[in-house]
Amino acid sequence: MDEFDAWLAERAAAHDFTVDRIPFAGLRGWYFENDIGNLVHDSGRFFSVEGLSLRSPGSADRFQPIINQPEVGILGILVKEFDGVLHFLMQAKMEPGNPVPLMLSPTVQATRSNYTQVHRGSRVRYLEYFTGRRPARVIADVLQSEHGDWFYRKRNRNMLVEADAGDDVPLADDFCWLTLGQINALLARDNVINMDSRTVLACLPPVGEGAEAADRFGRSLAASRDPGAGAVSTMTELLSWFTGLRTDCRLDAGRLPLGALPGWQRDDKEISRDDGRRFRVVAVDVRADNREVASWSQPLIEPIGTGLSAFLVREFDGVLHVLVRARAEVGFLDGVELGPTVQCMSACEREEETSPFLDRIPAPGSPRIRYEAFHAEEGGRFLNAVGRYVIAEADGPAPDALPPDHAWVTVGQLTALLRHSNYVNVQARTLVACLNSLG
Amino acid sequence: MDEFDAWLAERAAAHDFTVDRIPFAGLRGWYFENDIGNLVHDSGRFFSVEGLSLRSPGSADRFQPIINQPEVGILGILVKEFDGVLHFLMQAKMEPGNPVPLMLSPTVQATRSNYTQVHRGSRVRYLEYFTGRRPARVIADVLQSEHGDWFYRKRNRNMLVEADAGDDVPLADDFCWLTLGQINALLARDNVINMDSRTVLACLPPVGEGAEAADRFGRSLAASRDPGAGAVSTMTELLSWFTGLRTDCRLDAGRLPLGALPGWQRDDKEISRDDGRRFRVVAVDVRADNREVASWSQPLIEPIGTGLSAFLVREFDGVLHVLVRARAEVGFLDGVELGPTVQCMSACEREEETSPFLDRIPAPGSPRIRYEAFHAEEGGRFLNAVGRYVIAEADGPAPDALPPDHAWVTVGQLTALLRHSNYVNVQARTLVACLNSLG
Repeated sequence: MDEFDAWLAERAAAHDFTVDRIPFAGLRGWYFENDIGNLVHDSGRFFSVEGLSLRSPGSADRFQPIINQPEVGILGILVKEFDGVLHFLMQAKMEPGNPVPLMLSPTVQATRSNYTQVHRGSRVRYLEYFTGRRPARVIADVLQSEHGDWFYRKRNRNMLVEADAGDDVPLADDFCWLTLGQINALLARDNVINMDSRTVLACLPPVGEGAEAADRFGRSLAASRDPGAGAVSTMTELLSWFTGLRTDCRLDAGRLPLGALPGWQRDDKEISRDDGRRFRVVAVDVRADNREVASWSQPLIEPIGTGLSAFLVREFDGVLHVLVRARAEVGFLDGVELGPTVQCMSACEREEETSPFLDRIPAPGSPRIRYEAFHAEEGGRFLNAVGRYVIAEADGPAPDALPPDHAWVTVGQLTALLRHSNYVNVQARTLVACLNSLG
Repeated sequence: MDEFDAWLAERAAAHDFTVDRIPFAGLRGWYFENDIGNLVHDSGRFFSVEGLSLRSPGSADRFQPIINQPEVGILGILVKEFDGVLHFLMQAKMEPGNPVPLMLSPTVQATRSNYTQVHRGSRVRYLEYFTGRRPARVIADVLQSEHGDWFYRKRNRNMLVEADAGDDVPLADDFCWLTLGQINALLARDNVINMDSRTVLACLPPVGEGAEAADRFGRSLAASRDPGAGAVSTMTELLSWFTGLRTDCRLDAGRLPLGALPGWQRDDKEISRDDGRRFRVVAVDVRADNREVASWSQPLIEPIGTGLSAFLVREFDGVLHVLVRARAEVGFLDGVELGPTVQCMSACEREEETSPFLDRIPAPGSPRIRYEAFHAEEGGRFLNAVGRYVIAEADGPAPDALPPDHAWVTVGQLTALLRHSNYVNVQARTLVACLNSLG
């Protein structure tokens, strides 16, 4: 790990990055349609910032900006066995919104615009392993949603593929091979493993047999990964509960011009809520020498304050269970997905949070905390979007005493659902990766 | 079965149904918005007939009417054990579009408008078993798509629930308990088991152990149901192939007023294509004395001619495999689903069909045919939408010689996918139910 630290510091020193806030008028290639409309790119590609209206029975209509990015990108980690141990090819990557210069991204983290070269940038390294042009064994390959509060129906293709044993994969600058043990150790640190890596790692099926766990928590976590473990709900019951919630979801999202959003205002540097809460849309100018394009400008979404995403966990009959909450986020393709027990994407939302379990999340330092770190969300679209991720033990309620949108599930059940799209949201996927890092 | 035949004839005689074609101007409660717009109901509920535009890269834009029915209905079959044998509670139901007076529907076949009484009709019998108000064990519960050529993102909740052994379920008029063996025998007949029943039956997980199969086909079918059977592709490979097709799907559907559809014309009795092909929108007046409402009028979609949906099947290493084709239907929520090997929803489309396997579907009477019957699609929305459903053995191509949108899958793999939404389309689900009826 010392070697890794030195390597990351060296990669950061080898490159020159600057990110400056600029007025919208300073954006190169971006403009507001008809001056008051959506914020779009000259090429019609990449993404746009649009307006969204939300209607649900019994609630007042709500309005907010949202990022529309119809393209599905690839988030892919290349895996290879060295001396009998699986290694993961990770990339030290700069993203304009991240709070640190470099975080570890998947081997490939590319939108279709990236890899079809709309940027007119350099080609995407290692892409051929994920497009079938070079042989590799698929370990996982699934479309997963991203932040439904900020993205309109965005999904990325989460992939893990294993290179042939005989394939002498070249190691490019800014890339390094790490074992799962090393990645898990880095997940314990703040802001090292980026969101794209975390969501892909969550899709990794259990790898081999772990060492016998020394403590009760470790044994209950290992038991929780077993698909045949004694879960408080069968998979059939769980799917039925989820189907019921999805059926009852009556959130109706409509699109309207960004300039026509009631309760939001635009000045020369930001689009924000009249009350200053939740998030704002801003613009930045970026100079970087190791990206496909050396300099560009773009809009970003900047949440107000620090978020919080937490799993409460407890044992039932020696098997660890995670308390998930079904959430209807405005940008979801299919109404409802399973999220953390508690999820606040900004400081203000945290106060507004309706969760009955918010006050059960322990303060830092509590012995009930099994995992805690700060992680940034996708730095290509979000500025300083850092959240506190927590996994804490709790004497949570019995299954039949839960609010109707909550359920206790095993890690094995979450892993089974993660083979399919639109079941587990991106914050919960980060927490799954963090939980799996514990043993 | 003689008893059943007598009962169904008696139920048909006990009721009086008439369905008459009428001009649009004769529709009670329905009107064209602004005279040239969508065809909608006064209440704003039920469904509407709207216009759809389709754009995909490299193709000319296409246009068609489509039914928009945002409500999710319940299709539910109540199951109960009598003398150690599971029985399914089926309903003899009249639907205006069906080619015969009565077909067998699920126990509950109700839109939200039905069961929240927007019709102001009588209450839906047995609904309480499917809403949790009366205890029952869930066997399957999943949102499944319906005809993507005719419905905009329509899904229904497909449910099978088992009543408690001690629950003395009352038997209402028009309902009967049938064993799976009896249902399977009725599936061999034309137009007895309605579409709603067929899709629910497809979601039924394998029930117990069947009798030892006497012939090679029966043994390979039994082997095909085993989740651990030797499939030519692993589930991971299959999901990866599907994820790739879904990622690459670039079909962009937009909505526009029904009266503004290029290539379509409306007269006083129908909306049809200028070339007379595919389907038309018509109106009917219905009088029935055993429905929630005794008389009503409504629009229906009427395809031109008879459809065809077929599975080609073959053995690999003693395990039966089904040839599925991934289809991008215009109304799908999520781009692509797995359909039959060959699927034509009308006579004209059949001629236009691009399938490389169309000429491999045998004519009636061929010894290669394992299953063949005519089945109507949902008679509440479609008029005379009858298709020939075929399962035929073929020396189909090896897995690596298939066109890229085709795959060989086992019945066990289809059954696993059917636990989740939007993998298997409604025509393929009918064929799964038919295939399972064979032993």
